[in-house]
This record gives sequence, structure tokens and C-alpha cells, in this order.
Amino acid sequence: MEKKIPYKTYLTEEEMPKYWFNLKAVMKEQHDPFLNPATLEPCTAEDLKHVFCDELVAQELNTTDRLIPIPEEIQEFLKLYRPSPLVRAYHLERALGTPAEIYYKFEGQNTSGSHKLNSAVAQTYYAKKQGLTHLTTETGAGQWGTALSMACGFYGLDLSVFMVKCSANQKPHRKAVIQTYGAKVVASPSDTTAVGRKILADNPTTGGSLGCAISEAIEVATTTPNCRYVLGSVLDHVLLHQSIVGMEAKAALDKLGVQPDIIIGCAGGGSNLGGLIAPFMADKIEGKNNIDFVAVEPSSCPSLTRGRYAYDFGDTGKITPLLRMYTLGSGFMPSPNHAGGLRYHGMSPIVSKLYHDGYLRATSVEQTAVFKAATFFAKCEGTLPAPESSHAIKVAIDEALKCKETGEKKKILFGLTGTGYFDMTAYSSYLDGTMSDYIPTDEDLQKGFDSLPKIPQNEI
Amino acid sequence: MEKKIPYKTYLTEEEMPKYWFNLKAVMKEQHDPFLNPATLEPCTAEDLKHVFCDELVAQELNTTDRLIPIPEEIQEFLKLYRPSPLVRAYHLERALGTPAEIYYKFEGQNTSGSHKLNSAVAQTYYAKKQGLTHLTTETGAGQWGTALSMACGFYGLDLSVFMVKCSANQKPHRKAVIQTYGAKVVASPSDTTAVGRKILADNPTTGGSLGCAISEAIEVATTTPNCRYVLGSVLDHVLLHQSIVGMEAKAALDKLGVQPDIIIGCAGGGSNLGGLIAPFMADKIEGKNNIDFVAVEPSSCPSLTRGRYAYDFGDTGKITPLLRMYTLGSGFMPSPNHAGGLRYHGMSPIVSKLYHDGYLRATSVEQTAVFKAATFFAKCEGTLPAPESSHAIKVAIDEALKCKETGEKKKILFGLTGTGYFDMTAYSSYLDGTMSDYIPTDEDLQKGFDSLPKIPQNEI
Repeated sequence: MEKKIPYKTYLTEEEMPKYWFNLKAVMKEQHDPFLNPATLEPCTAEDLKHVFCDELVAQELNTTDRLIPIPEEIQEFLKLYRPSPLVRAYHLERALGTPAEIYYKFEGQNTSGSHKLNSAVAQTYYAKKQGLTHLTTETGAGQWGTALSMACGFYGLDLSVFMVKCSANQKPHRKAVIQTYGAKVVASPSDTTAVGRKILADNPTTGGSLGCAISEAIEVATTTPNCRYVLGSVLDHVLLHQSIVGMEAKAALDKLGVQPDIIIGCAGGGSNLGGLIAPFMADKIEGKNNIDFVAVEPSSCPSLTRGRYAYDFGDTGKITPLLRMYTLGSGFMPSPNHAGGLRYHGMSPIVSKLYHDGYLRATSVEQTAVFKAATFFAKCEGTLPAPESSHAIKVAIDEALKCKETGEKKKILFGLTGTGYFDMTAYSSYLDGTMSDYIPTDEDLQKGFDSLPKIPQNEI
Repeated sequence: MEKKIPYKTYLTEEEMPKYWFNLKAVMKEQHDPFLNPATLEPCTAEDLKHVFCDELVAQELNTTDRLIPIPEEIQEFLKLYRPSPLVRAYHLERALGTPAEIYYKFEGQNTSGSHKLNSAVAQTYYAKKQGLTHLTTETGAGQWGTALSMACGFYGLDLSVFMVKCSANQKPHRKAVIQTYGAKVVASPSDTTAVGRKILADNPTTGGSLGCAISEAIEVATTTPNCRYVLGSVLDHVLLHQSIVGMEAKAALDKLGVQPDIIIGCAGGGSNLGGLIAPFMADKIEGKNNIDFVAVEPSSCPSLTRGRYAYDFGDTGKITPLLRMYTLGSGFMPSPNHAGGLRYHGMSPIVSKLYHDGYLRATSVEQTAVFKAATFFAKCEGTLPAPESSHAIKVAIDEALKCKETGEKKKILFGLTGTGYFDMTAYSSYLDGTMSDYIPTDEDLQKGFDSLPKIPQNEI
């Protein structure tokens, strides 16, 4: 008799990954280097060390080591909430009547409510090891801010979190969680930084954006002794830390003897998607599988599906290095939609490069359809998903329904990045029918593109 | 080399309990029977079936079967979020510098945020099987209402949740979660029932209580066709369903070769405590261990430590059967403290009987000390605990610190019943220093005792 696949598969602590997977060591071409905006020369490690701590800079620039050891101390912290379960969505399959097998890797079983903690602990550990005493960051939906406050609470570092103003207003409880772990929360844009004051002067009623919040956090980090900035997505070292998600998922699927046909992840800055797909994508690049990788983004902030592949600033204040990525322009002001974590104008350079080179495809979905899928999923599978994660659920359901038509027994894996317990304002607006969809017009997008740096590299 | 105990121990799905543990089949004496308040005769099964569904009445009255099989369909639902982990609190031990070993059984890894789902699924399943179409209940902190909405969403039953008004106001997001799963939420006392209107007339500004909400829910259940009332705590069948917590904990500890010296649980209605201790207490009754069982309650609502062991109504409206239990009197109006789930005037008859017969001890703790312990725990162990659960954390920490003085290596197990993600209003008031403690005076308590039924059985 065939052994039944369990609802949930947990690795043992011994089976947990001891290494992060560095996808760049496998990629046939690297993404273009960061540029110093003043000189338009590639950034050196020295340039980056003013902003990021040393070990993270080394990881950011590492294109050669396929596996990077996870320090023992970080493994000890990870065991507080990992391994995360790989779940077979039997009840969802049954409700859809699909012959497809649906699996999800569930990252919501920790107080940050998402995968973000995976990188927060690593970045905080290295900061502590370097003797730093203070970190700054931004947060949108609040998951990253919570994750980092947990790590800083654990390691005893001061933390200032610049929280996108519209999220701070929608989510006072998120703010309280961050404060419980001992961090300071500042609604962004704020009057505590030069860049915040400038943004407020130009647009006093703005609800803020991740881009604004990043500018403020970097300003504080670079003007405060023993302080560095940490970022929860986009950068290569963040994707590296998130590769533990994919490593665990692959180990669990291998144990079950399951080879996925489709892997779906929501994409805001790209860290969840990049981490989830890392070891699977390596196999694809090396010709060992032909998995259909799908990035899902909101129609309201369609970096991959409607953006430009160009050099751009990572922040609204234009103080970061220039990154070549799919972007809507750092001047793009997303509507205050509710999937706060997906409201970023750009996209991870690694994910962008993979997309550009045809290794993954992208699709965009509208907000009300996403909440419909989220509510359906909650009733079937119990867990109330985060709006961000629900973008992946929506597409997983669509793919499973296609299988129902064709009779294909595809194996679908998606990333359930987190829970929606702090997103009830959004759920309420869905339930009472006041939620609306927003799709930027070509004119809206053009305004964002007009903000792209006018440099020779963007004139190709 | 001794095998290191992992941070988290999960049973496999095959190892999950297939039976509930019925502690009453082991107890040397049964608690006194329910009385019909009109006749003062013991309630018959027929009396109870007007309120509760048939199978639950059978379970309520079962004093003979030690193990009761969990139906296959319920097991399938349980696998959505169980087994729950048994966690070794290494980081907490280290922070306390204690030689004690601290373990907790963590029930917060589901969207209800607590152990309540264990009974919700069972009660909803039996209601569905009996052909009922509608359920009513009350909820305090909101965990039970959420749990029941999840089960009713899954099985497709209508549900009306009477939510204690002060909790409904403190926790609008909890309400939204319940609504997302398709249930109706009514703030109690409400003008939708006769008993609610009477309570409002007597006390228009009341924040409500579990007792009031129970009265309203029962009134609707007994006046609506195909409708029954379900209760999330107190009753024997609820403790039966919660025994899965203790069964899993014992199986996991047995696997690890660990025999606990102390088991600590918070006690509101007693379902968590009763479920956690069930199989361990059976061994104690049978002389196989000498575990120190500790019930922890809030100083603001001290049913065990300052209550009377008497026959009382389960609700404020005085429409339930009479239960012999430790009680503050159904007329006791607890202060609107924040551990909503512990604001019940009474206590499970099983827990009451065990306490009365000296099998467990009880202690009460003050609110600010509880939140101090909760915040400390969150920083060490990552998880932000529910205020209710934090009562057990506070006493576990105290016991571990005693071990630090004596050098004893006691093995402490406590129930971490849930997460505090919907309790951030309370955490905020702790953080900003506006939280206060409340200890009822003897006069406050006397008012409650004056509401006890004047019946011969209470004149002993």
C-alpha cells in the first residue's frame, strides 16, 4: 500500500538545514552590479559597509559559494520557531474538486507572523557580533518590523522601526507588538529626519511608502554611531537567509518523494519567492527539472508585469546605491492598498534577473479576488492567511482549477508566507463590500518611470 | 552521550491520540450531579438534551469509559493544526539561570490562537451529525468564538456568537476574524434577547460578563428550531475534548523519557487545565506519580482561592442547571480586567472536585506581574503569549526561580494555551504604565456570594 502523505511534514531538528543556499553561485549570469549614484561606478564593499554590517556585505557580494554555513548561534534561535511545516492541502483540494496535489510551506508559525524572521535573526546576529548597538529599518505591513524587534529583543540591540504611515494607522496592534519586544516605532514620513521632512513638505497628506521609510531609516543609520541599516527584502543577502524556506521545503518533499510541477510565490521585494525557489531553481538552471515558477504581484503595484528593467534607487529619497531591477520608478506612489508588504516599487535584483532571463514567469492579481481566495482558503484549511500570501493562494487555486478541467494531476507548491491576524481592517473592508480594486493607468505608471535616473545605463 | 532534548517535539500523525481521556472513569469520587433548579433533582439526559446535542450529553454523563474514541472525521480536522509542539524552553531557562527544566505544550498554532479549537471541532461535528443547522455560544476573550466560527465555517453550520461587550470593544479585530469565517457576532448584553434586555435595564453601562453572554446564547438556542448551545469550557465533555492536549503532552514526554514534577495551567473555566492534566492526574490518582498540579487564576477573579464550593448557576441569567463548583456567585461582576478568558465566576466541576479532594493546589496572581512575565517570556522564547496563558508562565517562572535557590532540577511543564495577538490593547496599557491591579475586597466577594441559590444543598 502506498504510504499516505501526511497533512503536515516537519523535518526533525537534525534534518534542519545547516547551510543557506546561494543561488548566485549557480546562475549562469549575475545581475548587474550596484552602482554608486555619484560616480556610476560599481559599488565596492567599502561603499556598502557604511550602510550594512560587514558580514552582510560579504554575503551580498558572494557569487561563488553555493552553500554558506549557518552559524550555530543562529541555528539555536531558528529552532524557536523552525522547522516550519510543509502542508498538504487535502481539504482545499477536496473543496475545489481538483485532481491536483496542493502543498504549501507555512511560515506563519511565529509571532512576526511571517518568513521575515529568517533574515531578521541573521542580520541582528551579525550586527551584534560586529559590536553594533543600534539598528534601523523600515516596515510596511509590519511583519518585518515585528521580526526584527523579536531578534533585537533577543540579542539586546536598540532598534528604530520606520513604519509606513498608512500601515501604522491601519495596524496599531502591530505597533504594540513591536514595542512589546522593546523597539521604537516611528510613523513614516516623519519629522525626525531631513528626508522625511522634505517628503512631508512636498506631500503633507501622504500615507507613506516603503521607499520613504527606507530613506529615513538609512539617514538615521548613517548619522548615528555604532548603527547600521537592515533591510527585510530585495537584497541578495536577504534572499540568501530566506533560502532556508526552500531548503526545508525541498528536504521535506524529497522525503515524501514528491517533485513539484509548479512553484508559486507572492512577490513584493522578492525575498519570500527568492528563498522558496532557491534550491529548486538551481536544479532548473542545471537542467535537472523543468518546474514552472510563478511570481504573483498585486495589479496595483505591478513591478514585474508592467515595470521597466532599469537601474533605480531602492528608496524614494534616492540615497541608496542604484540597483538594476524591474521597477515602477522610485517616484511611483502606490495606492494605499492593503497588502502592505507588496507595495514596493522595485524587485529583488536576483528575481529580476531570473525573470528577465526567462527562468520564471509573473502574473498580477486584483485585491478583491485575492481576499475572496483568502476567505475560501481560511474556511477550508483553518489558517487565516496574510493578504500578501493570499496572492499566491489565488494563483494556486486558479492552477488547481485548470487541472480540474484538463484532468492533470499537477503537484503545486506555494509559499504561505504568513498569517493575516494584523490585517483585519482589510478583511473587514472586504467583508462589508467597501474594498476596491486599483489598477494604475499607463499615465500613472509613466509618472513613476519619469523618476528613473537619467543615466547612460538606462538608455539602452 | 545523552541524546539532547530538542527544542520542539512533534508527534507524528500516526502517534497522535486516537482516544480522548475520560478522567472521571478514574476518579475515586464523582463530582455532585447537576441539579434541575426547579425541582432540585439531578438532571436527566433528557433535561440536558434541550440545550446540548445528544452525543455531548452522553459524553457529559459518561463516568465509566476511560478512553473514548475520537471519530475519524474529527481526527482529519485535528490534523489541520495538530499535533501541537511540546517545547523545551531552553532560552527561558538560560535567561533565568535556573537548573530546572521548563517545558510547555503550545496550543497557539492555529488561527483561533488557543486550545479552544479542540472542543469546537468536536461539538460542531456532533451537531452536524445530529442534523442541527445552527449553533449559539458566548465568547470572552474571543478565542472560543473564533474557534467555533472556524469549525462552523468548515462544517457549514450557522453560528451566533455573543461576545462579552468589553472584549468586543477592546478587540474589534477578533470580531472581524469570527465574521471572516462566516459567523454572526452580537455584543453582550444585547437587546436581542429577553435576558439581555433585563440585564441592560438593571445595569445599562455594564461591560458584560461570560455569565451574561451564556444566558443570551442559551435563550436563543432553546427558542430557535434545530439550534443548540455549545460551551467552550467548564463542562465535563469540554474537558474530555481537551484531554488531547494532555495525551499528546504525555506521549511526547514519554518519548523523551521525561517525568514532570510540576504541571501548571491557567484556570478560567478549567478546560485547559483539566485537559492538560487528565492522563497525568489519572496516574496520580492511581498512585503512579506524585506530581504537583497547580491551577493559576487572576487575583481579580479568584474562584478557587477565595470562592465557595457550592451549587450555583453557570450563567448570570440563572437559566442553566445548577453545578456544584468553586464559585464567586453568578452575580459576581468581575472588573473588566484583560484576561477575558479567565473572567468566569465559576470553575469546572471536575477541577473543583479535584481541588476539593486535595489532588491539585491553586494560586492567584496579579495582572501587572503577569504581563511582566509575559513580556519577559516573549523576548526569550519568541512567542507573544495570551494574557490567560501568561498566568501559567508567571508561576512557572516563580517555580524555576525557587529551583535556582534550592538547586533542584525540577521538571516543570506548563500549558501555553495561546497567543496574545488580539490582546495588544492590554499589552499597550501594560507598556504605557496605565494597567492596574484589582483585588476584590471581602465586601465585593460577599455581594457575589449573596447571589448563590438559597437551597438546602448550599447550607452544609
